[in-house]
Amino acid sequence: MRIDLIPTADEIKKETLSGQTAIALDILRATSTIVTAMACGCREMVPVETVVEALSTVQKRPDVILGGERESLLIPGFHLGNSPLEYTREKVGGKVVVLTTTNGTRAIRRAAVGSGEVLIGSVLNAGAVAREALNTGRDIVFICAGTRGEFSLEDTVAAGLIMMELYNLSGGNTVLPGSDLAVAAWRLGEFYAHNPLQALYDSLHGQKLAGMGLAADMEWCARLNCYDLVPAYQRDTIIVKS
Amino acid sequence: MRIDLIPTADEIKKETLSGQTAIALDILRATSTIVTAMACGCREMVPVETVVEALSTVQKRPDVILGGERESLLIPGFHLGNSPLEYTREKVGGKVVVLTTTNGTRAIRRAAVGSGEVLIGSVLNAGAVAREALNTGRDIVFICAGTRGEFSLEDTVAAGLIMMELYNLSGGNTVLPGSDLAVAAWRLGEFYAHNPLQALYDSLHGQKLAGMGLAADMEWCARLNCYDLVPAYQRDTIIVKS
Repeated sequence: MRIDLIPTADEIKKETLSGQTAIALDILRATSTIVTAMACGCREMVPVETVVEALSTVQKRPDVILGGERESLLIPGFHLGNSPLEYTREKVGGKVVVLTTTNGTRAIRRAAVGSGEVLIGSVLNAGAVAREALNTGRDIVFICAGTRGEFSLEDTVAAGLIMMELYNLSGGNTVLPGSDLAVAAWRLGEFYAHNPLQALYDSLHGQKLAGMGLAADMEWCARLNCYDLVPAYQRDTIIVKS
Repeated sequence: MRIDLIPTADEIKKETLSGQTAIALDILRATSTIVTAMACGCREMVPVETVVEALSTVQKRPDVILGGERESLLIPGFHLGNSPLEYTREKVGGKVVVLTTTNGTRAIRRAAVGSGEVLIGSVLNAGAVAREALNTGRDIVFICAGTRGEFSLEDTVAAGLIMMELYNLSGGNTVLPGSDLAVAAWRLGEFYAHNPLQALYDSLHGQKLAGMGLAADMEWCARLNCYDLVPAYQRDTIIVKS
């Protein structure tokens, strides 16, 4: 099985994803928040790209909760920000959440254009998402959201940690990196495997979040294999796949 | 001092290099060959982008030697290929070599458009090039040649090894990565520091060269700090700077 990595949502080309299993990563914080919300019983999440799109959805369906961020901050009129710590069972259990974030929701939606279904990955569910991806029997492509249109360390390291899980689950013989960037991600995963939190502090976006007093979010997002669940995006919505 | 990394020659923007010290890297094999040739007494190297440009240069100056490759192979009519092992004191001592390679010579010339002077880096002269770059007192940008227009592992790791030398030489307090890609390079340098040859075998271009029977070239290019010399490109030519 071939594995590859696309470093930013802007670099997705539809044809490169055809017939492949896409894993979307924006671990600081969109995909970590999605995994956490789903683990806390959230029924469904609808990723949208703009604040206007989110507000118009809530007009049609007043029962939904609005979540997301711009510049890492709560959006006026929204119920929740983009911190996974806010997505508790009390707040999101049984609910539908419409989510808009700067990079993550865009990456998820763009990944789906080529691949049909997108698995939502993070450090929190690395092993589960690897197992699910392996079960599809298809080649795997990691879609990193990137930071301001550039390569992001934290998402690349998360891809590497999932690659290590793929390697272990498959017996180690069949995982072939399709590019030097995929090899680099794998090696970075090995480098940070014993301390994923360090990768978050090494990243520019992580340093920004820490400077904003969001270190607790980073600690939350760095916990390896906390959740044995895989959210998947298909037909405009995210539900728990396995 | 800020350090950054541009993963392929195509991504060089003139304004990003202004006022910075550029270090060009195409360690398999162009920049390793340049460093080796200069260490063997080559007087001057002239990097050109096309075979036609090389052939027209030799018509004007019949005393020069032609070196280079296309598809990693010797170019018909050329004296030398792109293997550093060919660039011995007997063949290049005191001579002028015109060099054209698929990616490396282009990266060197494009880097010079913005920065004026380009230091030629490799694993072979990592410490020397770090010392020279530090002496300029300017921010440093690593220009990787890339493989077929994509991120290349071997050049990124070489940048990381030079970053480690910068860190050690500067006392460790003043080297600030300006992007996540620069951090990733540094961490990859640390990962492979005890076995740079492994990085070459992990890279797709290295695997191609090994498949062509060029493993001896890879072993040559992976030797850390063999040469205490820094070639530099300025005004269309490469000479030893220090």
